[in-house]
Amino acid sequence: MLPASFLSRLRTLLPSDRLLTDPVDCYAYAYDNSRKVFPPDAVAFSVSAAEVQTIVALCNEYRIPLTPRGRGTGTSGGSLPEQGGVALSLERMLHIVAVDPANRVIVAEPGVLNQSVQDAAKPHGFFWPPDPSSAAYSSIGGNLATSAGGPHAVKYGTTRDHVLGLKAVTGGGNLIKTGCYTTKGVVGYDLTRLLIGSEGTLAVITEATLKLTPFPEARTGLTAHYRDVKSCAAAIPQIMALPQTPSALEFLDAGALHLIRSHFPEMLPANTCAMLMIEVDGPARFISECCTAVLSACRNPGLIHAEETADAAALWLARKTLSPLLRDVAPRKINEDVVVPVAALPEFLDGLAQLSDKYAITNVNFGHAGNGNIHVNLLVNPDMADEMDRAEKCLNEMFDLVIRLNGTLSGEHGVGSEKRTYISKEIDATTLALMKEIKRVFDPCNILNPGKMFP
Amino acid sequence: MLPASFLSRLRTLLPSDRLLTDPVDCYAYAYDNSRKVFPPDAVAFSVSAAEVQTIVALCNEYRIPLTPRGRGTGTSGGSLPEQGGVALSLERMLHIVAVDPANRVIVAEPGVLNQSVQDAAKPHGFFWPPDPSSAAYSSIGGNLATSAGGPHAVKYGTTRDHVLGLKAVTGGGNLIKTGCYTTKGVVGYDLTRLLIGSEGTLAVITEATLKLTPFPEARTGLTAHYRDVKSCAAAIPQIMALPQTPSALEFLDAGALHLIRSHFPEMLPANTCAMLMIEVDGPARFISECCTAVLSACRNPGLIHAEETADAAALWLARKTLSPLLRDVAPRKINEDVVVPVAALPEFLDGLAQLSDKYAITNVNFGHAGNGNIHVNLLVNPDMADEMDRAEKCLNEMFDLVIRLNGTLSGEHGVGSEKRTYISKEIDATTLALMKEIKRVFDPCNILNPGKMFP
Repeated sequence: MLPASFLSRLRTLLPSDRLLTDPVDCYAYAYDNSRKVFPPDAVAFSVSAAEVQTIVALCNEYRIPLTPRGRGTGTSGGSLPEQGGVALSLERMLHIVAVDPANRVIVAEPGVLNQSVQDAAKPHGFFWPPDPSSAAYSSIGGNLATSAGGPHAVKYGTTRDHVLGLKAVTGGGNLIKTGCYTTKGVVGYDLTRLLIGSEGTLAVITEATLKLTPFPEARTGLTAHYRDVKSCAAAIPQIMALPQTPSALEFLDAGALHLIRSHFPEMLPANTCAMLMIEVDGPARFISECCTAVLSACRNPGLIHAEETADAAALWLARKTLSPLLRDVAPRKINEDVVVPVAALPEFLDGLAQLSDKYAITNVNFGHAGNGNIHVNLLVNPDMADEMDRAEKCLNEMFDLVIRLNGTLSGEHGVGSEKRTYISKEIDATTLALMKEIKRVFDPCNILNPGKMFP
Repeated sequence: MLPASFLSRLRTLLPSDRLLTDPVDCYAYAYDNSRKVFPPDAVAFSVSAAEVQTIVALCNEYRIPLTPRGRGTGTSGGSLPEQGGVALSLERMLHIVAVDPANRVIVAEPGVLNQSVQDAAKPHGFFWPPDPSSAAYSSIGGNLATSAGGPHAVKYGTTRDHVLGLKAVTGGGNLIKTGCYTTKGVVGYDLTRLLIGSEGTLAVITEATLKLTPFPEARTGLTAHYRDVKSCAAAIPQIMALPQTPSALEFLDAGALHLIRSHFPEMLPANTCAMLMIEVDGPARFISECCTAVLSACRNPGLIHAEETADAAALWLARKTLSPLLRDVAPRKINEDVVVPVAALPEFLDGLAQLSDKYAITNVNFGHAGNGNIHVNLLVNPDMADEMDRAEKCLNEMFDLVIRLNGTLSGEHGVGSEKRTYISKEIDATTLALMKEIKRVFDPCNILNPGKMFP
């Protein structure tokens, strides 16, 4: 429950159409794609940095939890107002402040959709590389909060590689400006990348200067079909050893293929048990030799066939529907996005199969193999206590395996509330304590997304 | 003067061949390429992270300033022990911990030279993109401390884009581990990039996990000769508007060309008053079309001629000798490395010429035009008070111009002691105060490189 005096002051800051306090209205801001539900006590819609600043300052004065929120497409619970308080929705900060193709820059407010950035950049021959599956619906504020990746990260990197500077309001209510407008700059500490991926725990981003990339001249898709996961996994490091880095290298296991077949019956041969979807891009003259090299790297005794695809778009559509299809099968599945070094992928996928057997947990695995980033989906029913107990043990062992292989617990989803109990497996106590002290510097009263990220 | 008890404890930590206290010996660690001289009271040579930790802890206990030092090739005074105390030389931490081509990774200690990293990566078809002019002599620790760039940053980015993780000892004496071993990872705050470019003010880096890049298949050089700076500057944004990003795009003004002519008499036509040195790389089949596009973008009424060069290596050698040649002409020149957005370069270079006239200060300008990063050299004699006074005013106005054009004061050299009085032009008081608080978290007693970076 929010103090009456706080609420009345909040009402003086925002017109009534930009403040929700009715629990029915607030409920729409209670969940994200983690499928947990934590209703906020109020939802505030800011339209300017100055407004963000006054709202944060007020929350800070009253020690009211404030959870910044983009479009709620995250899967780790990062935007859930777990401790109630105010959900600060940035979805109405929709202004593209500048489109500056001569400097390869777009400046945008946090509510601008990733897709809108792409649409603004495209006529000038540019794109913004981060491409999470949610790109059509997710905001750049959310992309920044998680350093979102996507299939093209294998060649182009993730969000943190494509941002030059930020404006943001710290938990203490201070408006700061980080980074610069140029592609080089080393004045002061790199607060830009400190904020990127900090999941709204340090500051509310109010503006971002995004670095654009020229479109490749040409692009084509290839598929490689394998008899078994082992052969398929073995091909991944072979492909990544090529000098021609693919622009996407996606892995799909038997479970993922089964799901695609259920929805697109004619798309895949029956005997394919694991598959790679590969994209190469670059100068038009380069594509065919690049395909030849990749197809050759795909070859091993377990390969059924590999070829350039006639209809890459259909395949990508199928790949994109995997997450929603999995939600149909297991609405409350556990969805992980662990990463291991590419060369360790065969060992990891093998270990994963053993864990699946050991704990009798069905899992479906696919993802950005070129980065070693696998979306491991445990198809569990949270209402079955025994299954959940086994799933938890399975997860725990899987994370241990990931760390043993020199990997990381999350490649692009973030820690949020879903992975915070596991973060100590990866980050030692000393480093974690330092991170908490940094949090204190930005947010002395711990009002910004409290309880997230840290165990 | 160091307290006797401190010195005697330091002596128990290090064998005598790894501790200098004689002022004559210490003098070799008193300077860098900023040409200022600040002798340390002692020089310690650590050979392990554990040793770094004990040395830092001891300095912390006694509140003794500790300045980490790579090979002293920096130009901003970042490695100068301005307040005396201990210079911690990392030059003997020379171990390449792992060469892992399958994962495109090299793990190295901070004293390893940039060139040694290249040598270790090359047989596997990889390179590490940061390429400061000092690459043959500078250590990766120093490259990390300044987020070093170089001519290839226009295509490949700077140091911060090519590091996956770090181990480091904070000013408080804590050993931390940042980032990960994989190309994706979003667990916890991005301390890796917070440390990169922090100029030894937060922590001493003891190990770095470097991300390697495959060599381009082919590479060629082009030159474009112009009648005047204006035409030359106008071509730069034209080239950067191409989808084919060059792998280097260097600008040289009349003064720079004059110096090259003095040393390489046959190299340059007499009527060239400004020049671009361009490199393109990529798949072999792509190079010729890329050259055609670049040559076409070079064209404007001020162009004398543009062509593919027969001997790119000779040109790069000439380019590399510019800094030493300038040192011969003006041993204590003022050397800046400001950056403006590429599209603002014509206006900046024009403004610079006006300032040079107004203050009667000779300057020579060249640098990484593709990033908008210009090395502005004011050829002054510090013994002439009047000239120095005019130079200071000129600098001050130049920095104002840079900021007005949405640029940054330093692209790759860092702030150190040379630019700290100007940092407030770029970073507002609130953001600067936050940076200082972050410094306090890492280094509560302010022993690490005290006085640097901040005004």
